[in-house]
Amino acid sequence: MTNIGYDTSKSELAAVCERASVAAEYLRRADRCARAVALRAAAEALDSQRESLVEIARAETRLGEARLDRELARTSYQLRHFASVVENADYLEVLHDQPMDTAMGAQPDLRRYLVALGPVAVFGAGNFPFAFSVPGGDTVAAVAAGCPVVVKLHPDHPRTSIESAAVLIEAFLAAGLPADTLQLVGGLETGRDLVVNSAIKAVTFTGSLSGGRALMEAIAERDDPIPFFGELGSVNPVIVLRAAASTRGQEIGNGLAVSGTVDNGQLCTQPQLVYIPSEVGDEVVDEMLRVFTGIDAQDFLTDAGGARYAAKVADLRIDKRITALTSFPSSSRCAPTLLTTSCSNFPQKIYDEVFGPLQVVVRYDSDDELFTALRALPGSLTATLHADDADSQLALQVLTVLETKVGRLVFNGYPTGVMVAGAQTHGGPWPSSNSQHSSVGATSIRRFLRPITYQSAPSWALPAELGR
Amino acid sequence: MTNIGYDTSKSELAAVCERASVAAEYLRRADRCARAVALRAAAEALDSQRESLVEIARAETRLGEARLDRELARTSYQLRHFASVVENADYLEVLHDQPMDTAMGAQPDLRRYLVALGPVAVFGAGNFPFAFSVPGGDTVAAVAAGCPVVVKLHPDHPRTSIESAAVLIEAFLAAGLPADTLQLVGGLETGRDLVVNSAIKAVTFTGSLSGGRALMEAIAERDDPIPFFGELGSVNPVIVLRAAASTRGQEIGNGLAVSGTVDNGQLCTQPQLVYIPSEVGDEVVDEMLRVFTGIDAQDFLTDAGGARYAAKVADLRIDKRITALTSFPSSSRCAPTLLTTSCSNFPQKIYDEVFGPLQVVVRYDSDDELFTALRALPGSLTATLHADDADSQLALQVLTVLETKVGRLVFNGYPTGVMVAGAQTHGGPWPSSNSQHSSVGATSIRRFLRPITYQSAPSWALPAELGR
Repeated sequence: MTNIGYDTSKSELAAVCERASVAAEYLRRADRCARAVALRAAAEALDSQRESLVEIARAETRLGEARLDRELARTSYQLRHFASVVENADYLEVLHDQPMDTAMGAQPDLRRYLVALGPVAVFGAGNFPFAFSVPGGDTVAAVAAGCPVVVKLHPDHPRTSIESAAVLIEAFLAAGLPADTLQLVGGLETGRDLVVNSAIKAVTFTGSLSGGRALMEAIAERDDPIPFFGELGSVNPVIVLRAAASTRGQEIGNGLAVSGTVDNGQLCTQPQLVYIPSEVGDEVVDEMLRVFTGIDAQDFLTDAGGARYAAKVADLRIDKRITALTSFPSSSRCAPTLLTTSCSNFPQKIYDEVFGPLQVVVRYDSDDELFTALRALPGSLTATLHADDADSQLALQVLTVLETKVGRLVFNGYPTGVMVAGAQTHGGPWPSSNSQHSSVGATSIRRFLRPITYQSAPSWALPAELGR
Repeated sequence: MTNIGYDTSKSELAAVCERASVAAEYLRRADRCARAVALRAAAEALDSQRESLVEIARAETRLGEARLDRELARTSYQLRHFASVVENADYLEVLHDQPMDTAMGAQPDLRRYLVALGPVAVFGAGNFPFAFSVPGGDTVAAVAAGCPVVVKLHPDHPRTSIESAAVLIEAFLAAGLPADTLQLVGGLETGRDLVVNSAIKAVTFTGSLSGGRALMEAIAERDDPIPFFGELGSVNPVIVLRAAASTRGQEIGNGLAVSGTVDNGQLCTQPQLVYIPSEVGDEVVDEMLRVFTGIDAQDFLTDAGGARYAAKVADLRIDKRITALTSFPSSSRCAPTLLTTSCSNFPQKIYDEVFGPLQVVVRYDSDDELFTALRALPGSLTATLHADDADSQLALQVLTVLETKVGRLVFNGYPTGVMVAGAQTHGGPWPSSNSQHSSVGATSIRRFLRPITYQSAPSWALPAELGR
């Protein structure tokens, strides 16, 4: 197939982008329900190929079968979710102002809705070879919006990318969409060449801050800047208040440690920073330590990722303001690490994301100390608050700070697990994202749309959605 | 007053931004209806000071009294419009997903709305000293959203800026908002220093492509990139189809020439390019020429602007593919200019915006010629289509191209005159804007908001808008 490639040459890439432009014309003008039908067909196709896809992904990612199975279920759920989003016209944000006289003069008939931006370049994540890669949320939201997608193949799971692209392309074709609705490209310099191609009208990226920065710099070289939607790193602070720590210490400690180590901590919503009261927090920390010490070291997604984790953990451990609660790993594999420091004297580098099963417990002596630390937090995807009713007065003050820092506030729960839903927000202030939109769930479709207004249009000129 | 300055020093600017951050805390947490009351109070205050404000603007802008009077009416209309937008909670985009079981597992209670971004830097336009400057749409939409504003004073109307800022600040204060809700800064390097200040969370700019580029480069140097909403230049094509040209030639020609020369053509929606059929278009062009030759040369907003216009017109006139219909101006003032060229052989530079009363008539011999030319058009704020029912088949094809090029499609009318309304879109593909949002009307508020989701929040933790 011409629209799938491991190592795409410059001339092939140009042809891919040209075909994406042609597909954009088709998708934009076709009935939107055709896209919904195609998304459902793709979900069915993924489900029917689940066994072989999971096996391919297992072989190249070091993720387990059960985890990959859940991930693929999430992926087809997501396809069906966006099929419903497209069928329901709400996402088009239709508005209609009738003609009338105003203090500014005569108001004409104005009808507004959202239209597709055009071809989207998608850079998926290494840690989710399905749900945040080729058949993932960015691809599906873009196609739902009516935008063809060119995915840059992730080098850590090339075969999974190619096989899942083949499944989607076949399903789209059978449902009547162009094969070029989805194309896959690969190669070292291909990412840069892709984002500077004039056919591409938006870019999504899930990955490291440095990778995101490099793409933003390439985009800045274009004659026409295009939107870049990055999800770039998050420390996901958890704040445990006193009454909650006193009454549910063990439960909270258990949940925190599980959330911090699930999938070997390689999740964008992994809670790296945990603020625990000095007085009544020992039960929380004791239980966290108990869970940590019971977990064996696991393989990282890649050796390079494991090495980065080990180096960052070592750098934190040598800081005098930090105490290690877990012991040094005895093997070369990277074990879950629990560190502790004080809210009154901690190194700034705990604010840098460490991708992996690291948690840093920050003990606070006073409310003032806690507030000072929270105000200095970087932007994150999530913040989590454990607060009983008796904590509510302090909790409301904490919330006024947290609301400026994150895209999702979790109450008395844990941040890992991001539901695909209408009211979901996955994306907070920089560096967790650079956008004013969610990258998971129904509203993430808005990233690939822009408004247009029809003024005084005769009925024959109006699109169906605007009342033809 | 400390929050108004002609020439702001670096230390003063730092203090201004710090105060804006403090005001942001207040505005974000205050009842949103307090903002609506303050916006209405500001409208009243502008209306009551209309005579003196118009006189100050007349003295420094070369715009006439009647025009300034209309502009100020638009400005207070806009304030009242956004007061209504804020009172009605629709702009908060509240969504609520109930807990339920799904194929992905248990869905928690998710409640989502939009929150204010924080302090906004506003760079106004020279051609609208009220409606697109200190008390203009960007300021008002940002304050409506709950964001304090720091306006960079426009050097072409400093006194107007200062006086209108004083009126707004007093009205905001009297209505209970902080004085620092609106601050005004000035000076040569101040614009750059403003957009790199970490307190600033978004930037709006209305002006030249080069000015917008310079601000985007400054923003790219920040540790945390912030959204830039630019409105940067537009040629606003008008396409006249054959039946319309045959049956309404004189009417269309008259309207086009008036729209092209009103306010001396110094409007962002001025229709610079006019596509007229070769066969049946003479009546349109004859009438345009009649109107053009009856208009005396007028002063530009600034001598520099007039010189730029004269240079760009001269550059077009010397091109052999272009014929001048109007004669060279006899005085040093810049007269309205009507040029004509052929759709089959025209210079690319007609696609560059010429700010002033220039129209270029592009005659097309065939539909193919027209389509080829339209596909090559740059992005614009508007496109206008004159089409009778007999033209509807060709018109629908033309629309499929125009819909990818602009933010507003005007039918059988003229693009100048941008109504402040809910369904308005002012902003199209690059270079007309770089954003996926309108910069005029109710939905322009979305530029200053981002989503946040409350997951499993107890009722005491919910903001009123999310159902506390």
